[in-house]
Amino acid sequence: MRTINAYAATEAGSKLTAFQYELPAIGNEEIDIKVSYCGMCHSDLSMINNDWGMSQFPLVPGHEIVGEVAAIGKDVKGLQIGDKVGMGWNSAACMHCNQCLDGKQHLCGDSQATIVGRHGGFADYVRGHWSWVIPLPKDLDMAKAGPLFCGGITVFSPIVLSGVQPTDKVGVIGVGGLGHMAIKFLKAWGCEVTAFSSNPNKTAEILKMGAHQVVDSSNPDALQGIAGSLDFILNTTNVTLDWNSYLTTLAPQGKLHTVGAVLEPMAIPAFSLIMGEKSVGGSPTGSIGLTKKMLEFCVRHDIYPTVEEFNLADVNAAIAHLEAGKARFRIVLKV
Amino acid sequence: MRTINAYAATEAGSKLTAFQYELPAIGNEEIDIKVSYCGMCHSDLSMINNDWGMSQFPLVPGHEIVGEVAAIGKDVKGLQIGDKVGMGWNSAACMHCNQCLDGKQHLCGDSQATIVGRHGGFADYVRGHWSWVIPLPKDLDMAKAGPLFCGGITVFSPIVLSGVQPTDKVGVIGVGGLGHMAIKFLKAWGCEVTAFSSNPNKTAEILKMGAHQVVDSSNPDALQGIAGSLDFILNTTNVTLDWNSYLTTLAPQGKLHTVGAVLEPMAIPAFSLIMGEKSVGGSPTGSIGLTKKMLEFCVRHDIYPTVEEFNLADVNAAIAHLEAGKARFRIVLKV
Repeated sequence: MRTINAYAATEAGSKLTAFQYELPAIGNEEIDIKVSYCGMCHSDLSMINNDWGMSQFPLVPGHEIVGEVAAIGKDVKGLQIGDKVGMGWNSAACMHCNQCLDGKQHLCGDSQATIVGRHGGFADYVRGHWSWVIPLPKDLDMAKAGPLFCGGITVFSPIVLSGVQPTDKVGVIGVGGLGHMAIKFLKAWGCEVTAFSSNPNKTAEILKMGAHQVVDSSNPDALQGIAGSLDFILNTTNVTLDWNSYLTTLAPQGKLHTVGAVLEPMAIPAFSLIMGEKSVGGSPTGSIGLTKKMLEFCVRHDIYPTVEEFNLADVNAAIAHLEAGKARFRIVLKV
Repeated sequence: MRTINAYAATEAGSKLTAFQYELPAIGNEEIDIKVSYCGMCHSDLSMINNDWGMSQFPLVPGHEIVGEVAAIGKDVKGLQIGDKVGMGWNSAACMHCNQCLDGKQHLCGDSQATIVGRHGGFADYVRGHWSWVIPLPKDLDMAKAGPLFCGGITVFSPIVLSGVQPTDKVGVIGVGGLGHMAIKFLKAWGCEVTAFSSNPNKTAEILKMGAHQVVDSSNPDALQGIAGSLDFILNTTNVTLDWNSYLTTLAPQGKLHTVGAVLEPMAIPAFSLIMGEKSVGGSPTGSIGLTKKMLEFCVRHDIYPTVEEFNLADVNAAIAHLEAGKARFRIVLKV
């Protein structure tokens, strides 16, 4: 038994309040993490607001966790007490289905999400299955690493999935918590990076992150001006866009990939796909193995999210800051 | 100068009538083909009816041509008079743009289509650029090979583009001129093949072609019954379908690929793409190199379209047969 000190929403849309709960005896394959930092993701707000109809209250948000192994079950593999670790959207996978055996544990049908029916990382401790508790490489800056475990891997995985090459010209739609990390990754990947943003106040900072140009996404002429040029576009927004305009900016065999879960079906003209052998895809987070490779890539290239730090006790102020669209560009709570 | 005896539509939607035209002196890089057989494709009907607004009349249809080299310009590469050859949707490419140099000549921005602003193969002779005049492998049955040059490569190319593996479970939507060839290819590819058809009269023949099962595409329960099972689906129809139902039949990382140019934008829920890392793509025909490989594959596996032969003089009867949906499964005109 362990008493956890957390912050929870008590009902849909409520402010977070101090909340204690008891964890039962640790399972054979489980790990308790003493939380050091936890990123704040838009999905935390969606879960607090029960936007997806799957929230259970009281709900402790937080799924961009870094910390230290505090306890391990007897069958835990590969980790010791005291190891520095991270955990993201997923906190358990079955490890024996075809997806898990193929190294796609994030697509496991029996996977468990850290804040769906479980309590997350806005807390002093959090529990997960050993599989998704990922050791941190030496030299990773823990204070900035939290957002890599959900937002980071969510935009890193499509780069690998889509086979993006350093010779490619790529675009990123939306420069927020996810998009700004995508720009940094793609810059380090060696690509020519175009950022699509409708906020001119962000331009200088976007260029500093590594984008080679910023295209005003609210201007159809600007999109037309780069027609046929991009090999890959990553959409990080969750609003309905003029998808065909973005397909038009793609070069032959170009790929439009969304990680933004826009609710309205995307209107995709078949003719636009056919004539240029283009495709539209999507993905959720990424696999365990790729998360590890991403962390090594971040250390090698000194890539971190641009973070604003709040103390966990100020979590409601942090949420208000995020909801107001003021985050530049990702919030981390210090526990 | 060569006088060509052809059949042409004189205006949009007209019956074809005997038509003669003069070809000027052959260009340095051009080839005249003496036509032996020419397949009849739905695109010929679309062009006769000017469905796509790009028809020029009089219009000689026909772009699934097999025959013999009758004349060559002085700079033609790799072909001699008397060689058995085929030519499909494309009859010229620039050969120096990035697409051509990358072996994707069918995506060349300056490519010319055989029946767009040129006269096609419902004729005794047809002219093309050497690049798209493709030598036939020894032992290819010319009487049945015509449809491979448009319909065949159109369904063969997505198999390669999408990286379909013999271990994959695949689906084909629509069993007509294109779909029946796709089933034969995918059977020979080693896959487990599901055909989606709403016509129970075709079932026995579809199974004989090599499909392992036929699913009634008009029955939502039937689609639901194979949820999560297919790695690749090829859509050969050009009508609006319940695309999300087909996305549901895909396994994680499954691909839905359309070669049917449905006019209404496809309604694709982002969530369906994201959760299973699925994608939706399209393609037109295929490259020169892949067309050659397809022909070799056909000889090796004894794969041919199932054809009905009409004499060129009976072209209007053949068109009526195709328009009535009676073709089983592809019409070839003997010239």
